[in-house]
Amino acid sequence: MRVTADLLQRQGYEATGIKEILVAAGATSSSLYHHFPGGKEDLAGEALAYGAGQFANLLRGALSREAAPESAVAACALDLAEDLAASGWSDGCPVAVTALESVGRSPGLRAASARLLRQWQDIIASRLRSDGIPDPAAGELASTVLCTLEGAELLSRVTADPAPLHTAARHLATLVKAAQRP
Amino acid sequence: MRVTADLLQRQGYEATGIKEILVAAGATSSSLYHHFPGGKEDLAGEALAYGAGQFANLLRGALSREAAPESAVAACALDLAEDLAASGWSDGCPVAVTALESVGRSPGLRAASARLLRQWQDIIASRLRSDGIPDPAAGELASTVLCTLEGAELLSRVTADPAPLHTAARHLATLVKAAQRP
Repeated sequence: MRVTADLLQRQGYEATGIKEILVAAGATSSSLYHHFPGGKEDLAGEALAYGAGQFANLLRGALSREAAPESAVAACALDLAEDLAASGWSDGCPVAVTALESVGRSPGLRAASARLLRQWQDIIASRLRSDGIPDPAAGELASTVLCTLEGAELLSRVTADPAPLHTAARHLATLVKAAQRP
Repeated sequence: MRVTADLLQRQGYEATGIKEILVAAGATSSSLYHHFPGGKEDLAGEALAYGAGQFANLLRGALSREAAPESAVAACALDLAEDLAASGWSDGCPVAVTALESVGRSPGLRAASARLLRQWQDIIASRLRSDGIPDPAAGELASTVLCTLEGAELLSRVTADPAPLHTAARHLATLVKAAQRP
């Protein structure tokens, strides 16, 4: 599952073959189908959830490290930039590639992706609420924070440059400060 | 090329086979390799540029329709939401899926994606500059606008809900207004 999560993060669902997973994991086909009777799609659903849990930990770590909510949200973008650069621009959002690929092709993976994106949004919204930003503003702001993080990760990955994430960090801080004004 | 651009937009590069392209386009294999000696990767590069041109037209249309820069930027998100909903959430960014898939797998498609993303950023930056936002602020703001549009399109597509794009429209307007303050 960890091996599959890595492959989905780096190259998505379509490029990832069952054989590649088995070789990378040192597993047999029979053990795969024993644990995941639905095969690749079944395994991918679990692997997405596993990868999403790691990403949720990164968000929680960044959000809890800073006292001011604008710094907490900026820290998410800065931590993502650091991890992305350290992995040679390969380890981006664990869900984005598969999520986009799934839209017209796998209702199950699409629903799983939507649920995981929602969990991340809730983690961000919860921090904003604890800083006194009321609903629905907190939930809406969390939506845009997540959108911006996802898009900035796309731009940083493709251009092999942390600048989109660093710039997004500053702009997201501006938005959070604007939401705190009475 | 148009058929390939549609397939790349909807399902990405990995899921799109040469056979599927030929059937959908009513073309022969020999004519494909005559025009695109490099085969699928070669054709995909041209198709990405074609799709990116359509997307650039959408951005230019939205940006030139509104007098105030904050409304112009919001209009980009609103137009994307309308197009995406009208296509049953299938026609998202023509580059995003292939761009993410290409990172570790196709240096050529990755470079093409980076160049096309940069062109969109320049279109947005140019409108912001014409409203008196100086550099580097205009370029940086355009980067975050594009990131947010990309991420909001991902969330809207996967959740089949225009809310992420609609919410992003309001937040991007807030950011552009903040950048205009002396």
